[in-house]
Amino acid sequence: MKEILAIIRPNKMTKTKEVLETLGSPAMTAIRVMGRGKQKAILNEVSMATKEPELLKAEGNMRYIPKRMISVVVPDEDTSLIVEAIMKINHTGQIGDGKIFVCPITDAFRVRTKENGDAAIF
Amino acid sequence: MKEILAIIRPNKMTKTKEVLETLGSPAMTAIRVMGRGKQKAILNEVSMATKEPELLKAEGNMRYIPKRMISVVVPDEDTSLIVEAIMKINHTGQIGDGKIFVCPITDAFRVRTKENGDAAIF
Amino acid sequence: MKEILAIIRPNKMTKTKEVLETLGSPAMTAIRVMGRGKQKAILNEVSMATKEPELLKAEGNMRYIPKRMISVVVPDEDTSLIVEAIMKINHTGQIGDGKIFVCPITDAFRVRTKENGDAAIF
Repeated sequence: MKEILAIIRPNKMTKTKEVLETLGSPAMTAIRVMGRGKQKAILNEVSMATKEPELLKAEGNMRYIPKRMISVVVPDEDTSLIVEAIMKINHTGQIGDGKIFVCPITDAFRVRTKENGDAAIF
Repeated sequence: MKEILAIIRPNKMTKTKEVLETLGSPAMTAIRVMGRGKQKAILNEVSMATKEPELLKAEGNMRYIPKRMISVVVPDEDTSLIVEAIMKINHTGQIGDGKIFVCPITDAFRVRTKENGDAAIF
Repeated sequence: MKEILAIIRPNKMTKTKEVLETLGSPAMTAIRVMGRGKQKAILNEVSMATKEPELLKAEGNMRYIPKRMISVVVPDEDTSLIVEAIMKINHTGQIGDGKIFVCPITDAFRVRTKENGDAAIF
């Protein structure tokens, strides 16, 4: 069992949810987060090269970008399918496309039925 | 050491916190999330069967339900006790009772004392 | 690859972000959470000792404290450096300094380039 944590653009949520539903994994949790990727580091390298202290200081505020984090728990054998599908929907080729992390999950429980294991996530 | 991630109804938070405190695990983190479980899939199956395109489209909006996610980190040997207690408090038998995930944790640190391992979570 | 989850005081965010950037891990996700640590348990022990039922009941409201949770994913070999740095910045010696959890990550993907593994997190 794996947790797939995807940090994506807010405007990609609807399509991402649709593809997960189509692929039989409709259950998910969505969280509003602030994210910062590699672009920040690149900006800073540029500004350091220009040696403009004010600009540097302004960038020291570390602008974060609103993102959505979605969490989907899937059986091991569905992991690459779901990762590929989320990448396909969220890929624009532009900086800010987001990241996906795959994390081990030891067990899952559905509270209503007290089922555990793969039965709890279908 | 395990992280227990429980996605529960907001109105079950107080009782859930109380039971965790009673069981000696008062430290936790709580996050507001939007969740969607199996009920969404069931709704869609019904609406697809009725062949009403407008209904289907309306449901394409994917109504999410406000939930709370709580995270509690416990020693391995307390995992099933805490999972059982959270299930007991949150079980109503109705759709929407929530889910619990158990995740491995490699290590924990208490910043104030720099303790790590089980000492950091008591 | 490890996920470092740190639950810290909101007023330590800027310095924490700065140190992560300095150490070459600028990419992170930040989430507003409500946290409760050991202090709650200590308060309750005190109030139980005083045998004042009203006080106990008031504390039954379980005051949560706003915290920030930050998530940084790093290669295994950088884990202790980043944990030590976050502890250094966030340590005041006072209750409420926060906690750090280290969690295993199976894989990571950068959506823009479809890179995975360590290449996805640099």
